[in-house]
Amino acid sequence: MFTDSTRAVFDGKNFGTVATLNADGSPHTSVVWVRLDGDDVLFSTLRGRKKDRNLARDQRVSITVVDHENPYHYVEVRGSVTIQDDPAGELIQELSQKYFGKPWKHDEGRIIVRISPEHVYERGAH
Amino acid sequence: MFTDSTRAVFDGKNFGTVATLNADGSPHTSVVWVRLDGDDVLFSTLRGRKKDRNLARDQRVSITVVDHENPYHYVEVRGSVTIQDDPAGELIQELSQKYFGKPWKHDEGRIIVRISPEHVYERGAH
Repeated sequence: MFTDSTRAVFDGKNFGTVATLNADGSPHTSVVWVRLDGDDVLFSTLRGRKKDRNLARDQRVSITVVDHENPYHYVEVRGSVTIQDDPAGELIQELSQKYFGKPWKHDEGRIIVRISPEHVYERGAH
Repeated sequence: MFTDSTRAVFDGKNFGTVATLNADGSPHTSVVWVRLDGDDVLFSTLRGRKKDRNLARDQRVSITVVDHENPYHYVEVRGSVTIQDDPAGELIQELSQKYFGKPWKHDEGRIIVRISPEHVYERGAH
């Protein structure tokens, strides 16, 4: 599903902006840390956050990840999510090391959001 | 509506990710150049692009702009858009100078998308 240059965008310390749907169907966007797991895209959030409340109603998302070194190179992934609890915060700890180089504070209610891509669009690859 | 630090994010060479709604109500995201005009957010696109087709059906958007110097600092603006033709490409030329330092190629069908903010959320300001 992903080309090498698409994978490189996800493997770098690049931020994603994820769009979910509010109760009235309007879009919401926020910034997330991401990584790939095979051909799925993973990010972490907390139970009760707007993203989580939105995804409980409607599982459809779009995420765009921009290459920090070359912002004209970006990837959009659209698909639906599944959510699992992450009580030990394994994903957020891993992402914190990737982006931040240090552990994340422990917080309650961590979840893993897994996007199964249905559509991948890449622009600006070399 | 905007604080000084919010304005600074828009005034910098920072990219926005804008979410619009597809025909089936699912979200679409893509990367845009932006600037403020008073308390409105402006970006440029072309007639017939997915963003334009989506906005013709549903005017609701969410845009997140990330501070390139500090990606933990970002702003989300939600609101509705109005669209006007920009046959001379005035906005794209201005944005090309801002981000690129050189003129944009002339292309037909340029439009200006104006977001009237209804909700502004800023995270990570100093």
